[in-house]
Amino acid sequence: MPDLLKILNEHVPKIFQTMASLTGVPGNGDIDPPRPSTLHGITGSVSVSGKASGTVYAAFSKNLADAVTIRMLGGDSPADEEVSDVIGEFTNMITGNLKSQLCDAGYACQLSIPTVMRGGDIAVEANTAPICVRNTFYFQELQEELVVLVFAKLDK
Amino acid sequence: MPDLLKILNEHVPKIFQTMASLTGVPGNGDIDPPRPSTLHGITGSVSVSGKASGTVYAAFSKNLADAVTIRMLGGDSPADEEVSDVIGEFTNMITGNLKSQLCDAGYACQLSIPTVMRGGDIAVEANTAPICVRNTFYFQELQEELVVLVFAKLDK
Repeated sequence: MPDLLKILNEHVPKIFQTMASLTGVPGNGDIDPPRPSTLHGITGSVSVSGKASGTVYAAFSKNLADAVTIRMLGGDSPADEEVSDVIGEFTNMITGNLKSQLCDAGYACQLSIPTVMRGGDIAVEANTAPICVRNTFYFQELQEELVVLVFAKLDK
Repeated sequence: MPDLLKILNEHVPKIFQTMASLTGVPGNGDIDPPRPSTLHGITGSVSVSGKASGTVYAAFSKNLADAVTIRMLGGDSPADEEVSDVIGEFTNMITGNLKSQLCDAGYACQLSIPTVMRGGDIAVEANTAPICVRNTFYFQELQEELVVLVFAKLDK
């Protein structure tokens, strides 16, 4: 079975480095986090369906979301819609990478379009997902965090 | 193109009638609601991917969620996990019906596993979805409401 946490730890920093010249350092991660799992800030979400089914959430702090958007699009005070575009795209890249690795491992699956949520604390659960992994990526330069949470069910 | 609002208005009440003996009356519905769209209560979500891609949200008021769970599982004070199971299953049925109709219309797609969110107001957006429909279903007997929101992108 693919090691989802290892895939995230390797590829999430690469995406931020390449797209926004930001260095994100993964925390220890959790392959059995408390459920439901609570997310804060602005959260992108992309689902996969097929032999692998599930959802990837990427929860950006407000400052991280703004900083990434400014680095991608320029300007200094991005509109909510621009921030949503960028967060949707980052979440799409994170999930797209995971999807490629799952397909390579024999779990053929497809991505859905991204959605972006804003709220206070949002507690999310996927009762039918045997797999749940979560990690925090710390951006020292901005002193801000990204949380990535994955619920998945793999059917060989 | 399939009329998503018409499909929801026809099938959401059937699901509640069959599964929980509850009569839900659709409101007028909106095929171009304000975006982002705000949801309250306990919200199930299921995505589809393929030639149709998108996400269906079903936002239950707390009392409606409890009532449906009690009608499905018995008892009188359901645990959060039981409520999540039932809401996930209802959202799966709503989305599964939509998926069947989309497949029949030539938009082959697959479902992801359901997720369930709890929070205050949650504003959701899917910038890459040209289609957004929303309707409220009113359950007179309980004086409670369900909101169903669909973001979709169809590629023939």
